[in-house]
Amino acid sequence: MTNKKISDKVVQRLPKYYRYLQELCLKGIKTISSNEISKSLHITASQVRQDLSQFGGFGRQGFGYDVEYLKEKMKEILGLTKTHTAIIVGGGRIGQALATYKGFKKESVIVKAIFDVELSHVEKVDGIEVLHISQMEGYVKQNKIDVAIISVQKEQAETVAKKTISAGVKAIWNFAPIDLYFGEEVACENINMSESLMRLLYKSKGLYD
Amino acid sequence: MTNKKISDKVVQRLPKYYRYLQELCLKGIKTISSNEISKSLHITASQVRQDLSQFGGFGRQGFGYDVEYLKEKMKEILGLTKTHTAIIVGGGRIGQALATYKGFKKESVIVKAIFDVELSHVEKVDGIEVLHISQMEGYVKQNKIDVAIISVQKEQAETVAKKTISAGVKAIWNFAPIDLYFGEEVACENINMSESLMRLLYKSKGLYD
Repeated sequence: MTNKKISDKVVQRLPKYYRYLQELCLKGIKTISSNEISKSLHITASQVRQDLSQFGGFGRQGFGYDVEYLKEKMKEILGLTKTHTAIIVGGGRIGQALATYKGFKKESVIVKAIFDVELSHVEKVDGIEVLHISQMEGYVKQNKIDVAIISVQKEQAETVAKKTISAGVKAIWNFAPIDLYFGEEVACENINMSESLMRLLYKSKGLYD
Repeated sequence: MTNKKISDKVVQRLPKYYRYLQELCLKGIKTISSNEISKSLHITASQVRQDLSQFGGFGRQGFGYDVEYLKEKMKEILGLTKTHTAIIVGGGRIGQALATYKGFKKESVIVKAIFDVELSHVEKVDGIEVLHISQMEGYVKQNKIDVAIISVQKEQAETVAKKTISAGVKAIWNFAPIDLYFGEEVACENINMSESLMRLLYKSKGLYD
């Protein structure tokens, strides 16, 4: 199973399937049909079948998919079987909220340190040390950090992300309101809150008239 | 100009164009070609031309698009010319971070109050009052609230969102790690942090090998 064969659009939906399968497992559900998946995730049944077929033939006609098996396969494909180390760059309100984000534990991500330009307000957030940003590159080099979580101001985001990359980081999770992109050699995901808010306001426009 | 004519996929890209046009305006750039937009936003030039043509013929061959005009048109289309009122439901770390989110001012969203089950830890966040969740429905009815921002636990998210909807809210901005959907009559945007993190880890998988 290689990364190359799975298209970007399927990758977009992959976590949705995985999260749903996790829930089914917790509920003790053993098998699931593509129609049921379709209904729950608002994806057409034919799309579900096509997506899942890309991971090998897990489904059996008339029996549906084996939930536990499919979940474990997806976990493996998503790379969630290994532990990832991370730092948070930017210790403001968003950075602090992220430090306590429960999803990290679930996806086996360990936040090792928070870096900020100012050290005055907090020393630790949820037991995670806050260090001065000048120590960041040295820290990344010494501690083999997989993921840099960027929660600085828009103006600093690209610069600090580049610093972490030159120190060895290959995955950027960006919360600054700017789209970052560093080419094929660096994984990057932007959480575009402002774009999401704009889409929401757009969608709500007709509803209040 | 009606909402109906613009497809979902274009709506997805709309805020990206708008944000980019805002930046160009700030830099004093008057006109822009589809090729330049394409390069900056990582969208093909033909896609850009097709998208922008949906808003009427703003571009002129050989001259490009009028930045200021296009930005103002998009602002209007996105519904950003009017002010929206909002409440935050869930006053934990994420709710508190959201209360200070700068994007609200930019998109003319005014957060009127924060609701939580516990009132002990904070009374106000950035000048915004924290009220008990039992007062929420009455407050929404009395104060004409447009947007409910959900930052409670996953288990409570759907219930509290439904309460705001039955009190009159028609736009849900959800930060709980669960996909909410309330049909055609309610606008809903989910910020899927856990899905984004999973996609990031997936994309980074091959890079560290």
